[in-house]
Amino acid sequence: MVNTTRSRKLARSVSIAGVGICKFGAFPTKTSRDLFVEAFKDMQNNLGDNFNVNDIETAYIGNYSSDLFERQGHTAPIIADWLGITPVPVTRIENACASSGSAVREGILAIASGLYDVVLVGGVEKMTNLPTEDVTDVLATAADGIYEIPAGLTFPGIYGELAKAHMDRYNTTSEHLMKVGIKNHKNGKLNPNAQFNVTIDDMIKRRQARAQERGQEIPEWNNEIDFLSDDSVNPMVAWPLRLFDCAPITDGAACLLLVSSDIAGDFTDSPVTIIGTGQATGKALHDSDELTSLSAAKAAGEMAYEMAGVKPDDIQIAEVHDCFTIAELVATEDLGFFNPGEAPHAVDEGITSRDGDKPINTSGGLKSKGHPVGASGIGQVVEIFKQLRGEAGERQVDKDLQVGLTHNVGGTGGTCVVNILKKGV
Amino acid sequence: MVNTTRSRKLARSVSIAGVGICKFGAFPTKTSRDLFVEAFKDMQNNLGDNFNVNDIETAYIGNYSSDLFERQGHTAPIIADWLGITPVPVTRIENACASSGSAVREGILAIASGLYDVVLVGGVEKMTNLPTEDVTDVLATAADGIYEIPAGLTFPGIYGELAKAHMDRYNTTSEHLMKVGIKNHKNGKLNPNAQFNVTIDDMIKRRQARAQERGQEIPEWNNEIDFLSDDSVNPMVAWPLRLFDCAPITDGAACLLLVSSDIAGDFTDSPVTIIGTGQATGKALHDSDELTSLSAAKAAGEMAYEMAGVKPDDIQIAEVHDCFTIAELVATEDLGFFNPGEAPHAVDEGITSRDGDKPINTSGGLKSKGHPVGASGIGQVVEIFKQLRGEAGERQVDKDLQVGLTHNVGGTGGTCVVNILKKGV
Repeated sequence: MVNTTRSRKLARSVSIAGVGICKFGAFPTKTSRDLFVEAFKDMQNNLGDNFNVNDIETAYIGNYSSDLFERQGHTAPIIADWLGITPVPVTRIENACASSGSAVREGILAIASGLYDVVLVGGVEKMTNLPTEDVTDVLATAADGIYEIPAGLTFPGIYGELAKAHMDRYNTTSEHLMKVGIKNHKNGKLNPNAQFNVTIDDMIKRRQARAQERGQEIPEWNNEIDFLSDDSVNPMVAWPLRLFDCAPITDGAACLLLVSSDIAGDFTDSPVTIIGTGQATGKALHDSDELTSLSAAKAAGEMAYEMAGVKPDDIQIAEVHDCFTIAELVATEDLGFFNPGEAPHAVDEGITSRDGDKPINTSGGLKSKGHPVGASGIGQVVEIFKQLRGEAGERQVDKDLQVGLTHNVGGTGGTCVVNILKKGV
Repeated sequence: MVNTTRSRKLARSVSIAGVGICKFGAFPTKTSRDLFVEAFKDMQNNLGDNFNVNDIETAYIGNYSSDLFERQGHTAPIIADWLGITPVPVTRIENACASSGSAVREGILAIASGLYDVVLVGGVEKMTNLPTEDVTDVLATAADGIYEIPAGLTFPGIYGELAKAHMDRYNTTSEHLMKVGIKNHKNGKLNPNAQFNVTIDDMIKRRQARAQERGQEIPEWNNEIDFLSDDSVNPMVAWPLRLFDCAPITDGAACLLLVSSDIAGDFTDSPVTIIGTGQATGKALHDSDELTSLSAAKAAGEMAYEMAGVKPDDIQIAEVHDCFTIAELVATEDLGFFNPGEAPHAVDEGITSRDGDKPINTSGGLKSKGHPVGASGIGQVVEIFKQLRGEAGERQVDKDLQVGLTHNVGGTGGTCVVNILKKGV
């Protein structure tokens, strides 16, 4: 037995030279390969003439289940063929909804290994071709098929358990959850690639306008919370989670060009460096010690902070895995941004709003930007990259941003990947 | 654009400290996690007191489609939980039937990156719970679902195309194919973990004995080729491939403990070092330039040879991906062991037999040992490890073995992974 409690250090530093993302949404005529090519072309535009497709030496594709969604396995070489990058080695990485977070990590290790300088990492999922109930069943395969699924649980139910536990322990309310969604839709409205470019307030006005057009009685709601508490517009899915507490079903893809930091300048004048990366594995929900935090998220965060040499307070902006509204609250506590039980108050006070002290999910998050599960982790990195470079358009945070973080969860914390990004090399 | 045509060199050398494998076969009551735990326990026995489960710092699990075979996604953390290795990062690697070959490669990169010293890599597949026709359909998802499957192709048909092309170009015959199977069953009989511990000659004797028991006319066959040419015992599946040209459907798992070579001595007195690794991606069959070789296999072999600093002639023993008998012939040509068209004659002359100059598939190969697709690549490494250490029991090659090779294919060459192993560090 050897002593393995040693500091985790990469042999080489890794930077992001450029990013690409496609419009997230529901696209009946597009397959995974189409979506990925769109994201890749966006990356080519982002990089310009400094990049040639032949620069790519290997690639990792995060994808949850093209098997069950599209009945297509062995997706990585098909995408490689469509990008024109054969014969370089290409491998699919699967860790449920953290698949592309893990793909980023494999790309980092591949460069640090000395074998490669230029690595494409991407994520893709095509989900909307199945009916909603079938999508829910496919996603449920990320839980334990022996101990959890036979108990009748699907993901809204599982995260409902987390929400109930958080409410019970910390007096968290349904309104706190709703405020996460309201905030994220405000951000998503300003993200042209988001699935929903609409705020909750916009939804109220649309409903009222539609009633007026039809000559119906115009419904009145006092405010957004009042609207979201109305069972007729926001039905209960799995108590206490309502429809607008759940991320949507989404088709989408995103990708990054990772390069050895010492050659980042060959590709861009403004690289972003991955100064910390952490990944951890958690027990399945049925075997977890507690329900108000995810052990894998805490462990992954600690790994990433240690490698980066930063503390939670140093993180200026973060994209966290809000597959359900409760998940964002738990994430910001697990990452040490707030003490346990304090995240709901932080949302109340606007601390996590785009103009707050700790902006969370400026992209709109999974809730409003959309959640193509295998692409979501890299979608998060795309947002932090753009924010750090001041290229986030209307939703740009008005601060001197230097350090940001991404937090990508698979299942109910079976996997969590945390990456910490810093402007420059 | 940067110059990426440079020598591929790992920052650190990686060795195999120990291996584990379960009995391959059909096990109705076992799931993937059960099979993997069996292989892991075998590895613990192999390593003895020098190894503690807490030594493992990260793990990669090769698996083709627990999604479609078991309706279980996110398999890696479930297996991690059953091994008791949470919270270490664990990731599933998917490249069809080359999934665990790619898992080995990711384990190598993880150690070379400087982040880890001790990495578990494994592969697993649970296939036999589905009816045969459904398994064939699941495997077919490794081909292109848009261009190939709608043409009516499944894998026996696809490899039948390769066989026809090889026959047409090189005068290869059905007898050549049969001789591959006859050889591999002879080897598999001597492998206690093989699915089939039976030679073709044994099968003849069993059929005759059964007829005698039942008072039926005792069938006569002149020799094994005569037997295998009999449609009643060896029916055509996809011309020219008969039943005994196809690897079986198998449940199984295998794993390796990879360690930084500088600490290999802490775990074992007789490590085996991975001196070369190559992986390449090929176009789908419908888009391939030729049918008598796999471009990804050639490219992966070249990468591995270059890194190892060895030539095809230096390889003393190899496990190659004989998912169909024709695949073994094509593999040994793609790897440069024989010139194009010469592999059938090498089999004829016994060169690839266990006592020949270039023993191929001493484990029994996928044909006789079995082909649990996500585990097959690591199953190959297990065999070469044992042969190099002189621990292959009755099937031990009687030579001073120093260098061996594994060749693991996904799909019809969408992916190929080649690893070159050397005794010692």
